[in-house]
Amino acid sequence: MQEHLLLRALKGETLDRPPVWMMRQAGRYLPDYMKLRAQYDFFTRVQTPELACEITLQPVDQVGVDAAIIFSDILVIPQAMGVEVLLEEGKGPLLPNTIKDQKDIDALITDEVERLSYVFDALTLTKKELNGRVPLIGFAGAPWTILCYMVEGKGSKSFDKAKQFCFSQPALAHSLLQKITDVTIQYLNRQADAGADVVQIFDSWSGMLSPADFKLFAEPYLLQIVKGVTKVPVILFPKGSWYALESLSTSGAAGLGLDWCVDPALARKFTNNSITLQGNFDPCKLLAPIPEIKKAVTEMIDAFGATRYIANLGHGILPNIPVDHAKAFVEAVKEYQPKN
Amino acid sequence: MQEHLLLRALKGETLDRPPVWMMRQAGRYLPDYMKLRAQYDFFTRVQTPELACEITLQPVDQVGVDAAIIFSDILVIPQAMGVEVLLEEGKGPLLPNTIKDQKDIDALITDEVERLSYVFDALTLTKKELNGRVPLIGFAGAPWTILCYMVEGKGSKSFDKAKQFCFSQPALAHSLLQKITDVTIQYLNRQADAGADVVQIFDSWSGMLSPADFKLFAEPYLLQIVKGVTKVPVILFPKGSWYALESLSTSGAAGLGLDWCVDPALARKFTNNSITLQGNFDPCKLLAPIPEIKKAVTEMIDAFGATRYIANLGHGILPNIPVDHAKAFVEAVKEYQPKN
Repeated sequence: MQEHLLLRALKGETLDRPPVWMMRQAGRYLPDYMKLRAQYDFFTRVQTPELACEITLQPVDQVGVDAAIIFSDILVIPQAMGVEVLLEEGKGPLLPNTIKDQKDIDALITDEVERLSYVFDALTLTKKELNGRVPLIGFAGAPWTILCYMVEGKGSKSFDKAKQFCFSQPALAHSLLQKITDVTIQYLNRQADAGADVVQIFDSWSGMLSPADFKLFAEPYLLQIVKGVTKVPVILFPKGSWYALESLSTSGAAGLGLDWCVDPALARKFTNNSITLQGNFDPCKLLAPIPEIKKAVTEMIDAFGATRYIANLGHGILPNIPVDHAKAFVEAVKEYQPKN
Repeated sequence: MQEHLLLRALKGETLDRPPVWMMRQAGRYLPDYMKLRAQYDFFTRVQTPELACEITLQPVDQVGVDAAIIFSDILVIPQAMGVEVLLEEGKGPLLPNTIKDQKDIDALITDEVERLSYVFDALTLTKKELNGRVPLIGFAGAPWTILCYMVEGKGSKSFDKAKQFCFSQPALAHSLLQKITDVTIQYLNRQADAGADVVQIFDSWSGMLSPADFKLFAEPYLLQIVKGVTKVPVILFPKGSWYALESLSTSGAAGLGLDWCVDPALARKFTNNSITLQGNFDPCKLLAPIPEIKKAVTEMIDAFGATRYIANLGHGILPNIPVDHAKAFVEAVKEYQPKN
């Protein structure tokens, strides 16, 4: 049996069409997800392996994507480190006890990744249920993004508190980033043991950093993760950090995710044509009429090429996307015919 | 008497140090502004020339910036076009009657820019009060950004309604963008007549567009504005649209504003060293200790060079910046000594 398209794309094998999946593909645009959401609160869904598995499989069965990504949340890492995380449905996360000083950092737990055994159980169960149909992706938040939430305590337009912490107390910031990194590496290797075929690192807020600050507070920890996660290929998604693509293309990562603000040809140029790229359809463009979606998908693949490429959105799918439009996106990739 | 630094920088004259001002420099971080804010609601402050003038002068007197920018709002344009705009203090704007179809666009008023005579009066009064101390900057929102608010009706993380409108009904979108552009050109030329020495176009949401969509829905209208505003130099600030810098460097604009996510050397490279650049200090970095601010400002000017450069933030100053830190930013620019 031939290996799955996703893994072949990450290895750089020549392909006729790229694999396709969508960030947040298991989520609010799917009516069957909404039924479970009405019944179980967020952390119940995340922490019950049977529910997480069911949710993970929905887009594979219903939308036809080429990979499953485990239903979970990046903020399980602060939880595993002993930091309380609350989530009011539709309102974003709240961390009531933010990290402010050395004492707070000293109190963090770094050796109890088994607190997240429910994630590993969900991966193992999902892997079994998938029965080889498509590969399974695990994930974690990047250390900078996790720091943002641990210091800011919630989402923010500017993450000014998180940045103030880094700019005013860089030594403390680095010790926090290091602790998050250490836990994340353990966590991702355990995800691989439990069944993840690939892992993706979401640096959702890296684009808030200047290029110089990205070099200080984000990149070194991404590099440690790529080096420390030895069992499966790693995809880095530094959202908004177009300026880091060249540098990250030599990080040892198997793939780089792109948001929709980078032209495909320029992304190939920035990365010296040397790495598998993933992305980068504007999630809002799934609101366009279906023929427009299909035309734009074909143009996107023409621009990236079918090889060393994973078709995806440039950010998570929006809750208001009609399921038929999501299906059209996936179908357009599967129907792709190389030019000439 | 020699011309002001800002105008000399925009002409490309060789300078020992750049001029400095800060986006949103008349605003919530200033205690004297907060006193007026407690007394008068937002549109009273904007629509009363004496108040707008007083607020505009505050940072000139108190922080020592090299330019004044008139206190106003980009959403006066929808108002002048007959669209209601509400503003709940600290909550962002609300446009209850969004643009949805041809009928809504047909109803827009495009020949009553004198509805904004309070802006022109504020400019004339401020120019008189400034008495030549520093130049006066006028401004408007870019057509794409104004469309975002007119279609979405409020701020948004994704502006998905605005994008859906553009992607599904491009002909309607272009007719709306054209009407906004026509009014904006009249408005900016009238600002010049009333006393503005320079005007800046804020494309606050251009960075939400892919490079290809920027070419369709943003750039053509920016180019029309640059061509249509004949009386004063124009600075374009396409926030987040690093990918458009090369193209906009030949637009005929006198200057290009940069957010903090573009490295200065790379910005010079993108623009072929051919245009005055403005920016791009991370507004959050004003929360760093004062010595760190001063060091970072010097490094920024070293990187851009003192010529063809206007020191500024990469986005508006935050309400929680200590006034002393804002002053330190300005002082560091004024104290700049060129590296030989």
